[in-house]
Amino acid sequence: MITLFTMERDYPYGTLRSTNGSKTKVVLEEKGLAYRTETVSPGAVWKKLPEIVAKHPLGKVPWIEDGDLVVYDSTVINEYLNEKSANNPLLPTDPSKRALARALENYADEGVLSKFLPLIWMPWWSPEAQRDTDSMEKGRQGMREQIFPFLEQTLAGKDCLCGEFSLADVPMMAVAMVLEVDGMDVSDFAQTAAYLQRLRNRPSYQAISPQRSVAETAGS
Amino acid sequence: MITLFTMERDYPYGTLRSTNGSKTKVVLEEKGLAYRTETVSPGAVWKKLPEIVAKHPLGKVPWIEDGDLVVYDSTVINEYLNEKSANNPLLPTDPSKRALARALENYADEGVLSKFLPLIWMPWWSPEAQRDTDSMEKGRQGMREQIFPFLEQTLAGKDCLCGEFSLADVPMMAVAMVLEVDGMDVSDFAQTAAYLQRLRNRPSYQAISPQRSVAETAGS
Repeated sequence: MITLFTMERDYPYGTLRSTNGSKTKVVLEEKGLAYRTETVSPGAVWKKLPEIVAKHPLGKVPWIEDGDLVVYDSTVINEYLNEKSANNPLLPTDPSKRALARALENYADEGVLSKFLPLIWMPWWSPEAQRDTDSMEKGRQGMREQIFPFLEQTLAGKDCLCGEFSLADVPMMAVAMVLEVDGMDVSDFAQTAAYLQRLRNRPSYQAISPQRSVAETAGS
Repeated sequence: MITLFTMERDYPYGTLRSTNGSKTKVVLEEKGLAYRTETVSPGAVWKKLPEIVAKHPLGKVPWIEDGDLVVYDSTVINEYLNEKSANNPLLPTDPSKRALARALENYADEGVLSKFLPLIWMPWWSPEAQRDTDSMEKGRQGMREQIFPFLEQTLAGKDCLCGEFSLADVPMMAVAMVLEVDGMDVSDFAQTAAYLQRLRNRPSYQAISPQRSVAETAGS
């Protein structure tokens, strides 16, 4: 049984989750691996307490424990989970196609989940009166000006970024989750809007849905 | 023939290179793959000109071209090169050990090459009188307080981070290169100092050595 250490909290307006923890949860679900989640307090992570740094040397979530093995970083964890089980492979077999999927995964990770998405997402963790609405609008502007045009061009009639669902789409599951809470209007980007809706329709999305509580989504 | 697009410049005090481009160059050398380098102007990258963004959507170096295939991000490129050629495998075969190697690669990439190392390295690209020496000292302090203690603990008598040389050590080759130019005193960290020297003794280091010119290191 794998334990996923992540940050998740029930709020009156939906369950909020770490975007990187959500990436890992989606892959545990897609691969059909048994797991349970353990919630780490945001304070312990933000202060980088020694017990966090002992598991993830950069003092972040997520990390997983699989017996004695500790693995950190959502991208690295997802490669591990994909290799651990042959069930439902999330990378093509051809090295060139694998490289394209990994490059798109990196684009979403570095260009979206570490850049524009936190500007929208972090304020949601505070009460409405304390939210930095300028930050939120700046994040949405970055998505509209840089990310969605790139997605329109990359999708170009495909169901997923590389055709079939792959590790490239996994960070976009977290984008779909954040934008469901945020309610951002994506209708000017028809392919992106339809793609995000397809991602929300996947069974694995139920494990990160803002409509389901922490208790309801604590493992499989 | 693979083309590596990177930033490299001859200076009176040594040849300076992109740390991420150096990661890729080391793996091309370790795998024995034929390649040539093409130098991209720092101005084009810093301005994120359309011709750069067309190759790497985050507007950075390195990227490689292998026939029609374009792959960006040094970590993704290195996975591709490792899979493209069976020669000198740079990851173990066991999924758990692969995960540990990839996690350490991520630690160095995110915690060193994207954090403390640029504070030391970026000033070296400017003339001495214009260098931000406070930034340089802050970078060295981060290395002493956070990175070197972690390396001492991780190395624990091993030759390389995972025993044999692997993708985990590749970003540390760029650390070895930067610290050769910088001349930072590492002698308080005996295992780290010996490890960095072992990395500099690898034949692949000759392709990123500050002692060798751009022209002398343009491919194999």
